[in-house]
Amino acid sequence: MRIAAVEDTGRLLQIVSTATEVRRGRECMIGEMAATIRVLTRQFGSSHKLLGIGVGIPGIIDLSTGTLHSASNLPGWSNYPVRSELERRLAVPVILENDANCAALGEKWTGAGRSVEDLCMLTLGTGVGGGFVINGRPWHGMIGMAGEIGHMTVMPDGYPCGCGNCGCLEQYASATAIKRMATDAIARNKAPGLARCMEADPKFSARTVFQCAQRGDPAAKVIFEAVGTALGIALANLINALNLPLHVVGGGVAEAWEAFCPALFRELHKRSIVFRASEPMNSRNKATLVTPTLLGENAGLLGAAHLPMLMEKSSTPRSLADRGQR
Amino acid sequence: MRIAAVEDTGRLLQIVSTATEVRRGRECMIGEMAATIRVLTRQFGSSHKLLGIGVGIPGIIDLSTGTLHSASNLPGWSNYPVRSELERRLAVPVILENDANCAALGEKWTGAGRSVEDLCMLTLGTGVGGGFVINGRPWHGMIGMAGEIGHMTVMPDGYPCGCGNCGCLEQYASATAIKRMATDAIARNKAPGLARCMEADPKFSARTVFQCAQRGDPAAKVIFEAVGTALGIALANLINALNLPLHVVGGGVAEAWEAFCPALFRELHKRSIVFRASEPMNSRNKATLVTPTLLGENAGLLGAAHLPMLMEKSSTPRSLADRGQR
Repeated sequence: MRIAAVEDTGRLLQIVSTATEVRRGRECMIGEMAATIRVLTRQFGSSHKLLGIGVGIPGIIDLSTGTLHSASNLPGWSNYPVRSELERRLAVPVILENDANCAALGEKWTGAGRSVEDLCMLTLGTGVGGGFVINGRPWHGMIGMAGEIGHMTVMPDGYPCGCGNCGCLEQYASATAIKRMATDAIARNKAPGLARCMEADPKFSARTVFQCAQRGDPAAKVIFEAVGTALGIALANLINALNLPLHVVGGGVAEAWEAFCPALFRELHKRSIVFRASEPMNSRNKATLVTPTLLGENAGLLGAAHLPMLMEKSSTPRSLADRGQR
Repeated sequence: MRIAAVEDTGRLLQIVSTATEVRRGRECMIGEMAATIRVLTRQFGSSHKLLGIGVGIPGIIDLSTGTLHSASNLPGWSNYPVRSELERRLAVPVILENDANCAALGEKWTGAGRSVEDLCMLTLGTGVGGGFVINGRPWHGMIGMAGEIGHMTVMPDGYPCGCGNCGCLEQYASATAIKRMATDAIARNKAPGLARCMEADPKFSARTVFQCAQRGDPAAKVIFEAVGTALGIALANLINALNLPLHVVGGGVAEAWEAFCPALFRELHKRSIVFRASEPMNSRNKATLVTPTLLGENAGLLGAAHLPMLMEKSSTPRSLADRGQR
C-alpha cells in the first residue's frame, strides 16, 4: 500500500509505503491507511490545506455508494463501504476509483497526457488493465467496468484465459504471459538461452526474459515480438474505433518497451486506417501517439490524488454538470 | 439523396428522395439539395420555423471548416466547402456530420437509444461503418475519424481488406462480404443450394443468401454464422473497453438479424467479461443491450435533422449545464 501527499500543482510532497499485508484483513488495512494519512496531514498541515482523499483500488467500484463491488486480489472486501469507513475516521471527502483509471488520470494530469483531454491507458503487470480519460474525466461505463482492455480478443482461437474467453490480450502482454511463453518455449526445447537463465535464476520472471532479449537471445525476442503484436492489434482496434490522440503504456512490462514496440508499431501501421491517416507523412498535423508511461509507478498515486481536485473544480454549476456525466 | 423536414419532436414531416446522380458532380448535387430544401421550407414555413440544416455525408469531415476531407464514394468532393456553399445559398446554419454518426445520433434521439446518453452504432451495408454517441453527442475523435469499426481486426490472419489490413470486420459482416463468402463457397462446390439460387437469380446478392438461410440452406447458414461471429468479436472488444449500455446494428444487413444474432450473442457471452457481468442473471439491473436499429434507413436522416437542435441547445449557458447533467 502506497500513500502520498500531493500538491494541487502535481508535486509529490511525500510517499509512504506501508508493509500491511492483505491477508491481515480489511479493518487492519483501512486502519493503517487512516493512520498514515493522519501522519501526513499533520506533517503538511501548517503549509497546506487537505482538500480530500482519492483512493485507487484494483477492483470494480460502485461509485454511487463508495463500496467495492468486487476485487479479485482483495478477498473479503466485496461490498465493503470503503468510502464511508475512511470518511468516518478522517472527516474529509474520500473518492474511490479503479486503479487503472487512476493511472490514466495521473498521466492526463501531470504525465504523458498533459496536453490532451482524452486518452487510453494500458497497464501491463501481472494482468493487463486499462482505463480511459474522456473529456478530461475517468470514463466508467454503464456499470463501472470500462477499461477491461486486457480481455479484448486479439487471437480468436488463442490461448485460454481465466475469464472464459481465449486469445485475450492479457494472455500475450502481461508479465504472467511473458513468463508462460518462456516456460513453454523452454519445455519445447526451443529456447536454450532462456533455459540456461531459468536454471541460473530461481526468480526467473518476465524481467529475466527481457534481459535475455536485450542480450539478443532469439527465443526471448520472439516472445516480445508476440507481446508487441498483441498490443498492436488491440491498440489498432481502439484507435480505429475511438480515434483518441494518446495511448499510454504503463505497468512493469512497459519497461521492456524497446523490446516490444517495433512489433507494436508495425501492427498499428498495418491494421489501423485511423493511425495511418494521422501519421506525420499524411497531411494533418495531429499524430496519434502511443507512448510509454511518463510517471511510471506513480501514475496511479498521482491520479488518485487528483480526484478530490477534480471534484473541487466541479463545485461550480457548470462543472457540477460535468460531474454528472461521469 | 434523401432530404427531409423533421420537427423538433422527432416527427418526420416529409421525405423527398432525389434521383441526382453523383457523377453529375458536386455543383449539381448541392444545387438540387438547396432547391429541395427551399421547397420543403416553403411547404412548412407557415406552421414551422426553420432552425437549421444537418447534412450526413459518407466521408471524413473537417468539422472546424465545414469541408469534406475525403469521401471515397463522392469523387471530386475532397476539400469542397459543403457548409459554406449551402449556407450561402440558403442563409441558415448548416452542420455537416459523418453519416454513421448521424445514424447513431438518430437512434439516440428518437430510436433504440432514447433512454441512454452513450451508444455505439454499427451500419452493415456495402461496407461496415460505425459511430458513437458519448454524453449525448457524436464522438468525433482527434481527426474526426472515430467509428472506423469496420476496420477493427477480428481475425488477425483473415481475409485481406482494401484498407491494407487483413481480417477486418468489414470482410465478414458487410453485404459485400456475404456475397463474396457465398461466391467462394459455390466455387469450392460447398454450396449446391446457393449455386442453384445464383443461376436462377441474375441479381444474386447478400439478400439472396439471407433468403437461402431462412429456408434452411446449410451453406447460407454457415455464412451468417461467420457474420455473427465476426460481429460478436468486435462488439465484445468494444464492450470490454467502453462498457456502453447500448449497441445498435443498422444498415441493410441488419435485416438478416435473426440469421446472425445467435452467433453474435454466443461470442459476446464467451468473450466479454463486461457483457456477462451485466447479464440479467447477474446482480445488477443494467443489461448491456445489442439490438437491431429501430429507425431503419431513416436513422441517419433523423440524426442529421437533430444536429441543428443540438447546436441550438448548446447556445445558452443554461442548456450547456442541462446537457452535462443528463
